[in-house]
Amino acid sequence: MEVNKLHNALTAWTDALGSNSIELHESQDTNSNMLPSSVQLKPVSIEEIQTCLAIANEFGVSVYPLSTGLNWGYGSRNPASSESVVVDLSKLNQIVDYDNTLGIVTLEPGVSQTQLNSFLQQQGGDFWMDVTGSSPNCSVLGNSLERGFGHSPYSDHAAHLLELEVILANGNCIRTSMGQFAPTQSNTQYAAGIGPGLLPLFLQSNLGLITKATIQLMPRPEYFQAMYFSIGKNNQLANLIDVLRPLRLNGTIQSALHLGNGYRVLSSIQQYPWEAMNGSTPLSPEVLAQFGRQWDFGAWNGAAGLYGTRKQVAETKRIMKSALKGHVKRIRFMDDSQLEFAKILKTPYKWLTGLNLPELLKIIEPVHGMMKGIPSDRVIASTYWRKRMPIPGSMDPDRDGCGLIWCAHLAPTKGVCAQEMADLVADKVQSHGFEPGMTITMINERTLDNVISISYDKDIQGEHERAMKCYHELANALIRKGHYPYRLGVQAMNLLSEYRHPSYQATLESIKHALDPNHILSPGRYI
Amino acid sequence: MEVNKLHNALTAWTDALGSNSIELHESQDTNSNMLPSSVQLKPVSIEEIQTCLAIANEFGVSVYPLSTGLNWGYGSRNPASSESVVVDLSKLNQIVDYDNTLGIVTLEPGVSQTQLNSFLQQQGGDFWMDVTGSSPNCSVLGNSLERGFGHSPYSDHAAHLLELEVILANGNCIRTSMGQFAPTQSNTQYAAGIGPGLLPLFLQSNLGLITKATIQLMPRPEYFQAMYFSIGKNNQLANLIDVLRPLRLNGTIQSALHLGNGYRVLSSIQQYPWEAMNGSTPLSPEVLAQFGRQWDFGAWNGAAGLYGTRKQVAETKRIMKSALKGHVKRIRFMDDSQLEFAKILKTPYKWLTGLNLPELLKIIEPVHGMMKGIPSDRVIASTYWRKRMPIPGSMDPDRDGCGLIWCAHLAPTKGVCAQEMADLVADKVQSHGFEPGMTITMINERTLDNVISISYDKDIQGEHERAMKCYHELANALIRKGHYPYRLGVQAMNLLSEYRHPSYQATLESIKHALDPNHILSPGRYI
Repeated sequence: MEVNKLHNALTAWTDALGSNSIELHESQDTNSNMLPSSVQLKPVSIEEIQTCLAIANEFGVSVYPLSTGLNWGYGSRNPASSESVVVDLSKLNQIVDYDNTLGIVTLEPGVSQTQLNSFLQQQGGDFWMDVTGSSPNCSVLGNSLERGFGHSPYSDHAAHLLELEVILANGNCIRTSMGQFAPTQSNTQYAAGIGPGLLPLFLQSNLGLITKATIQLMPRPEYFQAMYFSIGKNNQLANLIDVLRPLRLNGTIQSALHLGNGYRVLSSIQQYPWEAMNGSTPLSPEVLAQFGRQWDFGAWNGAAGLYGTRKQVAETKRIMKSALKGHVKRIRFMDDSQLEFAKILKTPYKWLTGLNLPELLKIIEPVHGMMKGIPSDRVIASTYWRKRMPIPGSMDPDRDGCGLIWCAHLAPTKGVCAQEMADLVADKVQSHGFEPGMTITMINERTLDNVISISYDKDIQGEHERAMKCYHELANALIRKGHYPYRLGVQAMNLLSEYRHPSYQATLESIKHALDPNHILSPGRYI
Repeated sequence: MEVNKLHNALTAWTDALGSNSIELHESQDTNSNMLPSSVQLKPVSIEEIQTCLAIANEFGVSVYPLSTGLNWGYGSRNPASSESVVVDLSKLNQIVDYDNTLGIVTLEPGVSQTQLNSFLQQQGGDFWMDVTGSSPNCSVLGNSLERGFGHSPYSDHAAHLLELEVILANGNCIRTSMGQFAPTQSNTQYAAGIGPGLLPLFLQSNLGLITKATIQLMPRPEYFQAMYFSIGKNNQLANLIDVLRPLRLNGTIQSALHLGNGYRVLSSIQQYPWEAMNGSTPLSPEVLAQFGRQWDFGAWNGAAGLYGTRKQVAETKRIMKSALKGHVKRIRFMDDSQLEFAKILKTPYKWLTGLNLPELLKIIEPVHGMMKGIPSDRVIASTYWRKRMPIPGSMDPDRDGCGLIWCAHLAPTKGVCAQEMADLVADKVQSHGFEPGMTITMINERTLDNVISISYDKDIQGEHERAMKCYHELANALIRKGHYPYRLGVQAMNLLSEYRHPSYQATLESIKHALDPNHILSPGRYI
């Protein structure tokens, strides 16, 4: 980009926002010119955002809006194009409306998971949010726009969006859904609107800048129980999926059921076992199996919440036990009082069973909480897997050089598809010297999302490049088998135009051109 | 429109499709020139559709695609603009794919409700479709594109679409969702796709012509029971909604719960009681009440299906009985065997209870079936309400001059909103001399759809104009109270640009212009 353009835009932004709302970071290119991505604009209002966009249009400098920028594993705060200046919306952090009859909340980009959860508790706890496993500080709105998912019956965050307030590239502010009608807030609860549906245009998108989201909340059930089970061998995955599918289809399983493989579970309990591996990588199946016996986890480990009246949950439990019998190693159920009891009984339990309950509770308690909408930082702890430093009290994977690439691809809820995908992933990732940590989530009745975490240590020379090579080979191999991506990191957006049907890509581009003729919004992102 | 343009286009279409694929109807304007809407193109393939569109672009003649054209109450086969030539897609009538593991079917615009239901029965009945109360011959695809709804847990038809095949105005054929990737059919089961979601752009829309839809089907439950209840007085509606809302929010009620008022129920049992009313209209509350006693219906009458295992249904029944106790006149449950039993016991039942079971079965049986995905023509029979002729064996409301205008507006699932809306409707419609027949459906956890049927006899001079006047006054009055429309007939599309926020309307128009620069697709429809 021309240096002058950026400098001129920066001057205009500084005049408009004041220097307090602009941060300049150190990154410079090899010629010591300032890079656009080293500039961070922090507007505090819709008017300031509109001004930022007007200046971007005037000087032809693109901007990359983010909510809180904790998009770990998918690029963190980095724009999809290095030509873009970051617009950080975290100063817009208000919960602006709450309907405690319908369970609807309207919030701004800077509202974190912790903030929303605390708010709902203060309001009496009648409604639960759905949390993603990412940081408690990450943006509720940002995760929804990326089609993130969580653990409760409201796990599909995008599907539970009702309305968005959007600033278009031309500065116009629109509201989707029934917000198309001015000026009333009536019928905010109806996501479809009337006429062509615009809301999903702004998901995984660069067509607008989102300043408010209205989302649905789950009513607190009379009773809740968590369910856990596991299988001993990797090749039992196909059968397990075929047993679970009808139960998800008929509604017995109401929430996003998560399966984590042994690698994934171990990385959420502890860091890489350097000692047991004599300092070598990747983790061998034998050592993994040894930890599996110690911590009582299997090749794949399932978790799901049961919600309803006590009788409804009892019937679900009966059906699940009967359906899974003979297909899983064991199936356990735990409600709030049992969890409290386990916490009291830690020591006797260990003595009785030989299992290390205190350590197990470290992972069971946050998973139990996440099924009830309580954020946890346990998943973030696992980004320290390959680090030689201990996990710090205040975690920041970006600061601490925790290498993490998420690779998330889809399959139908059919055993043969899941097994094929998981086997391919294990082969590929191990051949590159990393652990194939995976979760497979039934994100809806018919779709599995396999999220692979490629974890590495950025501080080891060449490791980042090796991890990226692993990612790109894996992503392409999965796509060639028909397992298309569910979400992409900024490093991989080119996969879309490469594999999309040209007419589809052209359609997206013509909409982009209509709404953002100067292409100032997040170029390279998903279109 | 210039007569020459139409004649030239017609010549080109005839050359391309052959005269067998073009129908000319009689309608002409006062100067005896042929009207565009009197031409009906019936292409048989995607290639022919692309040819039709190329000619439309070349000569600047707009086209109005329809699936089977049974859009009764919303304009039937009539284009939103009289300048448009109808493109009837009913010759594309194949079920092109069926996945009996995931419960997914892909079908063309001409596939009717009856056709899909028969197909699914032939395949073993493992999956049920969701039917709308409209004609068994109406298009499954067409109803989904209009955001129609039915009676089962899959009642929201648009929400159960997975993928659309779309012909754009420029002739390009694209597939939405994961169909964006060529050429595989993988991950058809995932509606969201990746990147900006385009599927909803083509709902209630004029941005493309839809040639295939992939839809989700509900697995047949182990057990099914229908639930019926009623309230005696109109002013008990608010309380009823407030009692039902938590049960829908927490998932106890899994399906679209329908409430029909007394007028609506009577019109589905019989035609207008001319004799009891001494030939006058509208129907008086006193005579309605008299029929309510005779047929055992109340001011509002509820119906919903319960689905699950026997124990799940038993628990739902227990919860419903306990929650509704004291709030409804009575609550009845009926499963398949009880319905069969009632059919056998018709005469003794009448003798025991004084109720006219044979007549009641005429409405209970189709409602029971619709909750299980079996189409029925009972709702269409009610369009003959104000006709003096008996209902013919082969019904065709358009042929028989049955006047019907649907007026469908939304409210949150809050008692006070439902009551306000229903009272406003009753006042307005009665003041125009018609019966305020209404259903209120909980189309999802948070939204009520009030569908008002203005029924009249087109053969009575001036009646159509009076009904239209009633409709327009009613629709405007509802909007001014914040009750926005859920769907519109072709006569009322202007309400959108009138009430929409100008920035929203401009956004829609810029997308329209990008995808259809000559505005040849259904001008005036929803944008």
